[in-house]
Amino acid sequence: MSNTIIGVVGTTPLPPTLDEMLEAFDEVEQVMRVTKKYKLASWEFHPKKTRIKVLDFEIGGDEVVVIAGPCSVESEAQTLETARAVKAAGAKALRGGAYKPRTSPYEFRGLGQKGLEILATAREETGLAIITEVMTPADVEQVYKYTDIFQIGARNCQNYYLLEEVGKTGKPVMLKRGMSMLIEEWLLAAEYVLAQGNPNVIFCERGIRTFETQTRNTFDIAAVPVAQKLSHLPIFVDPSHAAGKRPFVASLAMAGVAAGADGLIIEVHPNPDHALSDGQQSLNFEEFADLMPRLAKIAEAVDRTVVAGELAPV
Amino acid sequence: MSNTIIGVVGTTPLPPTLDEMLEAFDEVEQVMRVTKKYKLASWEFHPKKTRIKVLDFEIGGDEVVVIAGPCSVESEAQTLETARAVKAAGAKALRGGAYKPRTSPYEFRGLGQKGLEILATAREETGLAIITEVMTPADVEQVYKYTDIFQIGARNCQNYYLLEEVGKTGKPVMLKRGMSMLIEEWLLAAEYVLAQGNPNVIFCERGIRTFETQTRNTFDIAAVPVAQKLSHLPIFVDPSHAAGKRPFVASLAMAGVAAGADGLIIEVHPNPDHALSDGQQSLNFEEFADLMPRLAKIAEAVDRTVVAGELAPV
Amino acid sequence: MSNTIIGVVGTTPLPPTLDEMLEAFDEVEQVMRVTKKYKLASWEFHPKKTRIKVLDFEIGGDEVVVIAGPCSVESEAQTLETARAVKAAGAKALRGGAYKPRTSPYEFRGLGQKGLEILATAREETGLAIITEVMTPADVEQVYKYTDIFQIGARNCQNYYLLEEVGKTGKPVMLKRGMSMLIEEWLLAAEYVLAQGNPNVIFCERGIRTFETQTRNTFDIAAVPVAQKLSHLPIFVDPSHAAGKRPFVASLAMAGVAAGADGLIIEVHPNPDHALSDGQQSLNFEEFADLMPRLAKIAEAVDRTVVAGELAPV
Amino acid sequence: MSNTIIGVVGTTPLPPTLDEMLEAFDEVEQVMRVTKKYKLASWEFHPKKTRIKVLDFEIGGDEVVVIAGPCSVESEAQTLETARAVKAAGAKALRGGAYKPRTSPYEFRGLGQKGLEILATAREETGLAIITEVMTPADVEQVYKYTDIFQIGARNCQNYYLLEEVGKTGKPVMLKRGMSMLIEEWLLAAEYVLAQGNPNVIFCERGIRTFETQTRNTFDIAAVPVAQKLSHLPIFVDPSHAAGKRPFVASLAMAGVAAGADGLIIEVHPNPDHALSDGQQSLNFEEFADLMPRLAKIAEAVDRTVVAGELAPV
Repeated sequence: MSNTIIGVVGTTPLPPTLDEMLEAFDEVEQVMRVTKKYKLASWEFHPKKTRIKVLDFEIGGDEVVVIAGPCSVESEAQTLETARAVKAAGAKALRGGAYKPRTSPYEFRGLGQKGLEILATAREETGLAIITEVMTPADVEQVYKYTDIFQIGARNCQNYYLLEEVGKTGKPVMLKRGMSMLIEEWLLAAEYVLAQGNPNVIFCERGIRTFETQTRNTFDIAAVPVAQKLSHLPIFVDPSHAAGKRPFVASLAMAGVAAGADGLIIEVHPNPDHALSDGQQSLNFEEFADLMPRLAKIAEAVDRTVVAGELAPV
Repeated sequence: MSNTIIGVVGTTPLPPTLDEMLEAFDEVEQVMRVTKKYKLASWEFHPKKTRIKVLDFEIGGDEVVVIAGPCSVESEAQTLETARAVKAAGAKALRGGAYKPRTSPYEFRGLGQKGLEILATAREETGLAIITEVMTPADVEQVYKYTDIFQIGARNCQNYYLLEEVGKTGKPVMLKRGMSMLIEEWLLAAEYVLAQGNPNVIFCERGIRTFETQTRNTFDIAAVPVAQKLSHLPIFVDPSHAAGKRPFVASLAMAGVAAGADGLIIEVHPNPDHALSDGQQSLNFEEFADLMPRLAKIAEAVDRTVVAGELAPV
Repeated sequence: MSNTIIGVVGTTPLPPTLDEMLEAFDEVEQVMRVTKKYKLASWEFHPKKTRIKVLDFEIGGDEVVVIAGPCSVESEAQTLETARAVKAAGAKALRGGAYKPRTSPYEFRGLGQKGLEILATAREETGLAIITEVMTPADVEQVYKYTDIFQIGARNCQNYYLLEEVGKTGKPVMLKRGMSMLIEEWLLAAEYVLAQGNPNVIFCERGIRTFETQTRNTFDIAAVPVAQKLSHLPIFVDPSHAAGKRPFVASLAMAGVAAGADGLIIEVHPNPDHALSDGQQSLNFEEFADLMPRLAKIAEAVDRTVVAGELAPV
Repeated sequence: MSNTIIGVVGTTPLPPTLDEMLEAFDEVEQVMRVTKKYKLASWEFHPKKTRIKVLDFEIGGDEVVVIAGPCSVESEAQTLETARAVKAAGAKALRGGAYKPRTSPYEFRGLGQKGLEILATAREETGLAIITEVMTPADVEQVYKYTDIFQIGARNCQNYYLLEEVGKTGKPVMLKRGMSMLIEEWLLAAEYVLAQGNPNVIFCERGIRTFETQTRNTFDIAAVPVAQKLSHLPIFVDPSHAAGKRPFVASLAMAGVAAGADGLIIEVHPNPDHALSDGQQSLNFEEFADLMPRLAKIAEAVDRTVVAGELAPV
């Protein structure tokens, strides 16, 4: 016998008598009020770990899914070259920004529509799934046509209209943690997506802002087990944005797998020193190919898998 | 003779020979490259303090402008009652949210269009200017019709599409500081508005997120002199969100004036204990009326003015 | 009739029957268990604001007491010159480090015994009280001979042996807040001094460590009203260490008085650009003399006093 | 041929001509000025990773050394029982506090001399090395007699007199990172010990203070590769204090090994729910014995070793 859990959520307080009314139905085994602020994201509402199917792989299962690619889509050549390299090394999806949030209005802000088309070409050629950022509700329809997973960036983690808009599409959404976001607020941001009927939310820890300056952000690795204790939703880590500096990316990636992360998203660029954005934190192809089998070993040690490519050096 | 400064900004690097070409014109006195990341917001580009005219008052002049009102527009009665009370005590503008960003999707999110209409009624009756939050680019046109100043909330401080959209309107924009926003990033966010040709940006310090829990946020009062040293734009403080608790609001408000703030935005509610949002940090009418003459005295001590209402107790 | 409150504190849990036993005495009006972690520092234990007499002035009364002087005692000439200047401008006490905690072992660490003797000379000549830092229990006896107020620095705020040692002396102790100290932890640190029978503790807010880098620390001005709500002990502010940069010191000092601080401690140096430590945050004599009457005006606006010297410019 | 590097450090600026004078010696190959603030801790001064011999094991080599034990020494029975259990599971050293820094003066502060004697008994019986905290310079001599490694706690990380005192002993010193300590400041604190001629410093990352409240501290795992890039000194992690909650300790411990930590220090107690301090973050014997072989697998994946005990379950 399987159980079905029906969650009733909304802003209007429910009458206390409703519980009795509902329990009167034979089919209803138990009526339970969830007192946590986040509801759909909690284990009470959804006692099984969420698994999200994307093309030929699954997020939230035994495999630790690796996503890789450049910060920005700069050109077709750069993107295809990177797609082939990360595919060969074992990545399952390609990251690449067509719309880029930039702290200054005078910096490169992405290729837009053309960038999306380049990602589509890379997808077609390599079979990699695509994840790309959407920054505003008006762009959701356009980005929907090209991406397999919507990325919501740290700056937009509490852009509620955007969260609801991607919620309506039903497509998987990777929700990056804001720079000073409490884990509880993160779960509540996910709730905005879930409440639109889209169960496919993936968290991504990418470092928080603290006083320390040796790294771009402070990688809050404890967010992995904490989020997994509070929620059934899968959680990724982004060691590239956390570290902000190439020499530390591999250590943080391995730590993420050891801590139980369901996946990683890593910046890889054919020529990091000439990248239009985030070059100082991007791995080159060799560094990425070298990292994959090391991640595979750590995954094995925690009874998970990472499938490193055959071409990858050991 | 008056000087006109023309700023040339953009993402394409300018040819070095351009300087000479421009200096060849008789009318050009000097060509200067601004090396700060923020340009239009800097004193180099605009050596006079920005003054913004709103109805019958001016922001950025000698007067320390006080804005007051409820967190949310809850009803016409609540809003009109508050508008009259804060007007009588000396406020120049009425704050009130019609669209409310809420951490949880299950909380009260504002009356929307109806809330805007209530604000318009309050404006008509009292003559107070209106400031209200806009949360997404698609709402800018609608909110434009009703508000005198757009408020961009802390969660949207790096919602660049929204910043550009309010930038296009030319109407004054109050830009709240994000919870973990560097002052430099704040200036760059202002730059998004300014770069659209809208010079009317007002900063608002409302506390940053730190480890301390006795207050809702940590009021970074030094942001006032720092922003004034780096930029010609006026800066307000929001002691209500900084404190998060009523007993501390007055002290922070007075400190803000002493530190040189160009204005204050304070939450006032007819019955704080029954407010639909932020009641614990809202002053009641009496507390606000009592605060105004105290602010006036501090303002005088720093050679500024706050005009407390005649009805206000001393 | 006056009441006497006797606090019973210790680490051994008291038997519940003790309350009844004590109440049986005719002289005992009420037995009350204080449930806050800090006890002697709380209003429950000591319902009157603490006033501390030092030479001819009082801390915790109507006067906002200004302490000024160099970061380090560098020479007799520098110290005496500064003492005369700050005395003339209205300061009540002279600060100056003979023992300096330095982040690096290779920096100037103070003149030690010789520095203390120079302070004694300055005291004798000007009548100013002396406040100087003590860094380790073994030095308490020596520093006791020269100082009127012990300063416990931010790095030593949880050096419990040191707190107990100065607690035993009975002399006033200024307890600087640690860089990442919760206000509750600060009260508990004070409790270490108070529990030794020394009621003369003065808090000093000097900025906390956050992500912002425009100032040396983030001046948590709300700590002033918060500490005053939780405790009867006086609280000072140190705008020099908070700002870390000269141009912001005056604004923070004025904000501190407006927020209700009981005093200020300000770094002043004859020639800040050549100071052996903290020069970039020290005021010169003229800047300090200029600040005093401005502080006096703010103090007046909050019904307190600062007595600026006759020689001070207005 | 082996090279000897002689470091000349001090607070007096060296004359520029000194370089030439020294290079005139035939035995001198090169004179080099180290411009980093930390000198003895840097790779420039000591190009080989520091290895520290303690009883029969070595810190800084291939083995990831595990230290375990109770927060406080509570009794001989509790300590011996724990010592036997952690020894059986593979720990190399026993931790246990005889002197405990406590935020409140009214909490259990350790057994002092009796606690040290109990640790000595545990050492004798099990052969485990001992690490215990010393809190004040006056206690260094006493603690020296009983401990194999001095522990300097987070609150004392900038207690410079204490650092110099343990520096004089030559015994290994574990230097915990302060709650808001920059990694550069940590290296400078180590410099205080090193400058006394004691090369045996071990860093220990134990979490920093941030806004997040789900964990006691924020485990800054990136501190491991960062410290290793800047310094030749070994670095441990303390997942217990970082997490503050039992369910997260194992994940953080595994992450620490994956990130390259040279060792771990873990709180273990026979009956965590009845511990006199830190019970909520202590593992019981079974949890610890279960963790050890998992750490061994991770260690193997990064080409290091952890030797789990024979009795440990797999």
